[in-house]
Amino acid sequence: MAVIGPAPAGSGATRSGGTAVRVGTVESIAWAGGGLTVLDQRRVPDATVYLDLRRMDDVIDAIATLAVRGANVLGTAGAFGFVLGVRAGLDPEEAAARVIAARPTAVNLRVAVQLALSALRRGEDPLDLALGLLAEDRDACATIGALGRQELAGATRLMTHCNTGALATTGRGTALGIVYAKAEAGEPVQVLATETRPLRQGARLTVWELQEAGIPVTLLVDSAAAAALTSGKVDAVVVGADRIAANGDTANKIGTLALAIAAKHAGVPFYVAATWNAIDSSTPDGDAIPIEQRDAAEVLGTGAGAPAAGTDVWNPAFDVTPASLITGIVTERGVLHAPFGPAIAERGR
Amino acid sequence: MAVIGPAPAGSGATRSGGTAVRVGTVESIAWAGGGLTVLDQRRVPDATVYLDLRRMDDVIDAIATLAVRGANVLGTAGAFGFVLGVRAGLDPEEAAARVIAARPTAVNLRVAVQLALSALRRGEDPLDLALGLLAEDRDACATIGALGRQELAGATRLMTHCNTGALATTGRGTALGIVYAKAEAGEPVQVLATETRPLRQGARLTVWELQEAGIPVTLLVDSAAAAALTSGKVDAVVVGADRIAANGDTANKIGTLALAIAAKHAGVPFYVAATWNAIDSSTPDGDAIPIEQRDAAEVLGTGAGAPAAGTDVWNPAFDVTPASLITGIVTERGVLHAPFGPAIAERGR
Repeated sequence: MAVIGPAPAGSGATRSGGTAVRVGTVESIAWAGGGLTVLDQRRVPDATVYLDLRRMDDVIDAIATLAVRGANVLGTAGAFGFVLGVRAGLDPEEAAARVIAARPTAVNLRVAVQLALSALRRGEDPLDLALGLLAEDRDACATIGALGRQELAGATRLMTHCNTGALATTGRGTALGIVYAKAEAGEPVQVLATETRPLRQGARLTVWELQEAGIPVTLLVDSAAAAALTSGKVDAVVVGADRIAANGDTANKIGTLALAIAAKHAGVPFYVAATWNAIDSSTPDGDAIPIEQRDAAEVLGTGAGAPAAGTDVWNPAFDVTPASLITGIVTERGVLHAPFGPAIAERGR
Repeated sequence: MAVIGPAPAGSGATRSGGTAVRVGTVESIAWAGGGLTVLDQRRVPDATVYLDLRRMDDVIDAIATLAVRGANVLGTAGAFGFVLGVRAGLDPEEAAARVIAARPTAVNLRVAVQLALSALRRGEDPLDLALGLLAEDRDACATIGALGRQELAGATRLMTHCNTGALATTGRGTALGIVYAKAEAGEPVQVLATETRPLRQGARLTVWELQEAGIPVTLLVDSAAAAALTSGKVDAVVVGADRIAANGDTANKIGTLALAIAAKHAGVPFYVAATWNAIDSSTPDGDAIPIEQRDAAEVLGTGAGAPAAGTDVWNPAFDVTPASLITGIVTERGVLHAPFGPAIAERGR
């Protein structure tokens, strides 16, 4: 893959008129000139570097190494990766399987690639499907932002985990999309962003993109969230989702469950915000969601203070928050409340 | 202060006889030749370096910068620091105040220094007081280990937070003292050690000292603890304490509260292990415990991936776990159970 130079990032929030705010956000993914251009999220916030991915294996590598990340960007990127594989003459079934295997827990990736495969089988150009997903995702994020803003009216201090904004989606984001919608409406909003160990997506990505957009953000270590919640510093927790089962159980970045349990203990509402394609009706509940174990090196680190190589590490990529701890699930088809099973079944028709 | 070369560390667990195990542990603090020798815990696990502290300001600096850490080592080190100040001709009241101010939340530090000041006022040599504290702490750790081993009979998979072992006390430790007692009795024991952001005492210190002692340890990020607890991987959580109020509310390293809430949710027993001097009967409850805010740089980090300097950070050193979430408090005077207020008052006589 080629590395192309810095591209214009968001220009920050600029006031236009009385209270409405134009929130400038970064762009994470685009299709241009027969290839896929993605922001290399491993380099943020140190450098704004875009990768030009021209082969399916480039896309797989970018997904597996988290250069491309975030449930929704993963899906769209995967569909484009499939397009590149098929255009290079690969067997479509094999191409689809290989792209999906790059991140096995991410249902958006699997769904998007399978949609592209189905389009090809119907004789359609899978590129049109991928471009359609990109546009749909942008629209879905906008709708989630608007619905979440209504649902969370009055909540100004929002805690979030990992990264679910402009870097994680092709649009303005899911959980952070709600933050952007509030800011753009001129409503007061501030974010408590958890660091999100081991890969620090909160510290590296969420803090950066909110600062770029001019939205107040406070960083805290993951383990400090319980103290913030119980001491009245948070109006609501809003997180994204990697996969939502048919009963509402939600797999998301490791540490989400800890926030949900602490929020329940503290009486703080806990929301999931996700585009509908994160909902996997074929997964009955959280027990059926496979959880990736990631490399010990992510936790051990290197250099001063790193434990000895070979130290035993438990490093699950995700945990599952049971539906019973979730106040609501904000999707582009509406805000779902308990019982989530029937709500999902009804809107999924 | 002078840096003196590496000293012999623990030699690992060695079997002697059938099941009894001699657990070799490191030494963190000693008085020799008119000065205080401490293991520089900022350098562990990369190097075993002992600091030779000959002036009170050296001790204050070592405490403030966490070269010396752990509630019990802090107390003993503070008393020796006071001795050095008085020997250098400082006003005793001022010397005591300055040492205490090095870590305002640590009640062990305050109590130990005040005891040394009182001894001086009675015409005694405060060095004898400090040496007595050192011996008492070693004995207290041994008793906590033995009592905790009885209380937690049958619990083999223990989760802990931060560092509470040979590096944190002048003896074998409080929470980790229980682990060592189990190992030495030949009982099966394994530890799930949380990383303990931001300073990673779990990853840097606990993992290292358990590996030195030959005890199985698995490292996980703080936010993964909830998933470990709810999925049945943990028999009990055992943590230390920086200060315990008269009602049992316990201030300890940030993240302790999150573990206590998740343990309650998962039905896993949650124990505090602490020497009696961590109990401050003059503090009625957790609301009265001051919580240090530490430097943002600890969370932000430096180099690749660090958020911009000036990023707003909430970085409390401690949180307060309410007594209602605590199954028992293991002290050298016995294991306390709810209601903790009367139990503390009775044993405190």
